[in-house]
Amino acid sequence: MERVDLNADVGSGYGRWTLGDEGALLPYVTSANVSCGFHAGDPQLMRRTVLQALRAGVRVGAHVGLPDLLGYGLREMRVTPAEVRDYVLYQAGALAAFLRAAGGRLQHVKPHGALYHMAARDPAIARGLAEGIADLDPRCALVLHGEVAAAAARALEIPFVPEGFVDLDYGADGAPLPTPREVRLAVTPAEAAARAVRLVRDGVVVTRDGVERPLSVRTLGLHADGPASPALARAVREALEGAGVRLVPLGEL
Amino acid sequence: MERVDLNADVGSGYGRWTLGDEGALLPYVTSANVSCGFHAGDPQLMRRTVLQALRAGVRVGAHVGLPDLLGYGLREMRVTPAEVRDYVLYQAGALAAFLRAAGGRLQHVKPHGALYHMAARDPAIARGLAEGIADLDPRCALVLHGEVAAAAARALEIPFVPEGFVDLDYGADGAPLPTPREVRLAVTPAEAAARAVRLVRDGVVVTRDGVERPLSVRTLGLHADGPASPALARAVREALEGAGVRLVPLGEL
Amino acid sequence: MERVDLNADVGSGYGRWTLGDEGALLPYVTSANVSCGFHAGDPQLMRRTVLQALRAGVRVGAHVGLPDLLGYGLREMRVTPAEVRDYVLYQAGALAAFLRAAGGRLQHVKPHGALYHMAARDPAIARGLAEGIADLDPRCALVLHGEVAAAAARALEIPFVPEGFVDLDYGADGAPLPTPREVRLAVTPAEAAARAVRLVRDGVVVTRDGVERPLSVRTLGLHADGPASPALARAVREALEGAGVRLVPLGEL
Amino acid sequence: MERVDLNADVGSGYGRWTLGDEGALLPYVTSANVSCGFHAGDPQLMRRTVLQALRAGVRVGAHVGLPDLLGYGLREMRVTPAEVRDYVLYQAGALAAFLRAAGGRLQHVKPHGALYHMAARDPAIARGLAEGIADLDPRCALVLHGEVAAAAARALEIPFVPEGFVDLDYGADGAPLPTPREVRLAVTPAEAAARAVRLVRDGVVVTRDGVERPLSVRTLGLHADGPASPALARAVREALEGAGVRLVPLGEL
Repeated sequence: MERVDLNADVGSGYGRWTLGDEGALLPYVTSANVSCGFHAGDPQLMRRTVLQALRAGVRVGAHVGLPDLLGYGLREMRVTPAEVRDYVLYQAGALAAFLRAAGGRLQHVKPHGALYHMAARDPAIARGLAEGIADLDPRCALVLHGEVAAAAARALEIPFVPEGFVDLDYGADGAPLPTPREVRLAVTPAEAAARAVRLVRDGVVVTRDGVERPLSVRTLGLHADGPASPALARAVREALEGAGVRLVPLGEL
Repeated sequence: MERVDLNADVGSGYGRWTLGDEGALLPYVTSANVSCGFHAGDPQLMRRTVLQALRAGVRVGAHVGLPDLLGYGLREMRVTPAEVRDYVLYQAGALAAFLRAAGGRLQHVKPHGALYHMAARDPAIARGLAEGIADLDPRCALVLHGEVAAAAARALEIPFVPEGFVDLDYGADGAPLPTPREVRLAVTPAEAAARAVRLVRDGVVVTRDGVERPLSVRTLGLHADGPASPALARAVREALEGAGVRLVPLGEL
Repeated sequence: MERVDLNADVGSGYGRWTLGDEGALLPYVTSANVSCGFHAGDPQLMRRTVLQALRAGVRVGAHVGLPDLLGYGLREMRVTPAEVRDYVLYQAGALAAFLRAAGGRLQHVKPHGALYHMAARDPAIARGLAEGIADLDPRCALVLHGEVAAAAARALEIPFVPEGFVDLDYGADGAPLPTPREVRLAVTPAEAAARAVRLVRDGVVVTRDGVERPLSVRTLGLHADGPASPALARAVREALEGAGVRLVPLGEL
Repeated sequence: MERVDLNADVGSGYGRWTLGDEGALLPYVTSANVSCGFHAGDPQLMRRTVLQALRAGVRVGAHVGLPDLLGYGLREMRVTPAEVRDYVLYQAGALAAFLRAAGGRLQHVKPHGALYHMAARDPAIARGLAEGIADLDPRCALVLHGEVAAAAARALEIPFVPEGFVDLDYGADGAPLPTPREVRLAVTPAEAAARAVRLVRDGVVVTRDGVERPLSVRTLGLHADGPASPALARAVREALEGAGVRLVPLGEL
């Protein structure tokens, strides 16, 4: 029986501000990526979000970002691998403390926004990311796309969980692309559900140019910032279950 | 034989900026308080500072502050006890991750600047501080002055280490006062040494009004931001050792 | 004929985040307070918000706050009058540049959140605020409550426009109080409209204890962060106009 | 008679932190670039620095940077031209307010660090920069290297002042390169003085590969962060004056 994890970004506010109805996604996902204060997230929001996720039976990872609150971590910055390593250790270390206080344990680390794409492309950045995780806890998984990241995880002997998306564009090389928010939000629950089944059951993604490509994923990343995000998450989950796929937190795959 | 810990603030820079010659103090102290990013400190500086301290055989604690980089954590802010708890857990949790990566363990938490004085005075703030520490690691000690903080530590069942200073003014109630930097830096090494012996061996502090008061301390807090800071630290250490006091990290008292 | 200004806070987002449907209030107000980057607001949002306000025929002022993005400027900080003066000059100076670029002129400065209450209460803080405004442009008005602020404005020879609120609690001394958001949002459009007429036409406010007090105001401050905020603004405007009050930007009173 | 401006970066601290002995350079330069809060600088430091410069008879410009306090504005970020425009208008607008309050006027804008190199290379970024300046004050000059920036200034009809350096490496294309601080600080006052004369009188720069290239400059940018910075500034000034060059603020060239 096929197994896959469903993950969503949560805790993506800051102080007085919030994004989307994140709590409404929790019933449908198995893992949650909590922002840690660099691109979003703050200490009180991290505590609340961790508790909310654990109460919903959802496993928790650190959504680590570039130090760019103003740009929400979406702008590439010329950071060094050593900077990435230390930014990851700082953010994930802080979140791990909130998790332990709540009786949980850090399941994974997933980079956010620009750092995601940089680490998927650049072996030195991927290595910095993997070093930060290994420094924290070598049982903690790296969630990312592609072979560059997988190789970095292997080198540091940490688990790697390849990720796919149902609302991002894919390039000709099979890599997810930075996708404008309006394009992302235009994907309907039905489309997302169909793509999820195609990706998880058949191992196939369709690129922006309409070409089918093989892609092996063990988690699907969902977004929480659109009005239809909960409906989309629900449709994806139900479609996968209907196709005989079992949803399992990535730490138990 | 009398025993006492000597602690100093280190890692008090941010990005491109540094304060004082902190490394020059390490040979003389037994514990170091590392800034964690709220009032000073950044991930790369935290890693470097932790390594430097451990190599010098110095035990490490978290110097936690208010979220006020612009004011260097010296301005009181009307924060809630729950905010303090979560700010402490975030900062100390991040530092603990760097310590574990370097083979060390968090020995203590010491609040910085305005948060120090707020927690020494206000039971609710002291409790928030102690809760943050207990959430992280109940073996980790709280370093602070006075009975308010001691009571909060007892209530949360974490160790408490009372602190004294040789370069701060003391009020009539025996509490250290926010002291202008120029007053602090005007204290000579010889004066500091004499005060240290008086405080540790005799348990006596002299208030700003010239009155002697009993004060029981188990650690002395030194500052690193003056040109004479290393000479002062050395004079204090030598005077204490000359008076038959043994210097021991606070976690081993 | 009675005249009054209606002002609302706008541009209260930051980077990726926004608050409420601010644009929906613009048809009903005569002045807008634009956040300037300390408690909320960023350069791109400031430009957009200024343009939106000017296009709606609304005059623009600077909504200046404490440097506390995490706390949204709602927490009192122990800042000095000189710090307040320079924080105000920095923020209002930046906003004035966006206004001039759009063909407008800074009409007023209104402090936000904790700074509002501090300046209404503390003559030294009020003076720092007034000095910052006078440094920028002595024709620019200070919008605030009470005699402390009025005296500071007189001393610096800048215009003062006393403000009232229809959704904040008032203390026994006739000063608006920090009011929990849920209390504020529970005020209905009809209640707000009645209070507005009572305040502007009759010069009367009802305190939290139910006592009527005389209060002379020349502008009413509306909030934009609730779902009913636009409806409330509309009700207030229509009620005032129905009572024969003319709505005029505060710079033209 | 040859004329040139000498400019130096000042106000490069933040809150509790400072960099170098900036005041010691003021007697030797004709223009100063004041940091505006994004990569360094804060409101109180801006006020103090502006006053110090004006009292020394030095003209003042805005040293505008990327929003990266942690990286001191030295790391390239993928910002849009519209972001650059608005970041420049915000920072320079705030500084201009401090200048007017002190009886001065903004003479120029000079980008800092990564933004300098990005604008020297990328026409769209250069245009965003020039638009921000033109939005503020079309009499305000842009200080930068190279034809890309010069063209942007021409398009927006603002003055352009080409800049050279005596302590940065130059590439084969005649553009200054990001130069490690230790390389920069290794340049002696005598070397700097010789290069200054060669550059200003003869219009020649020597590239990193030892090749002489023509380069026309009207201002020389000096740095303030080394122990020998004041001595270097003095040597440059005296050598230029000895070679018959007159030092004039760039606004009067």
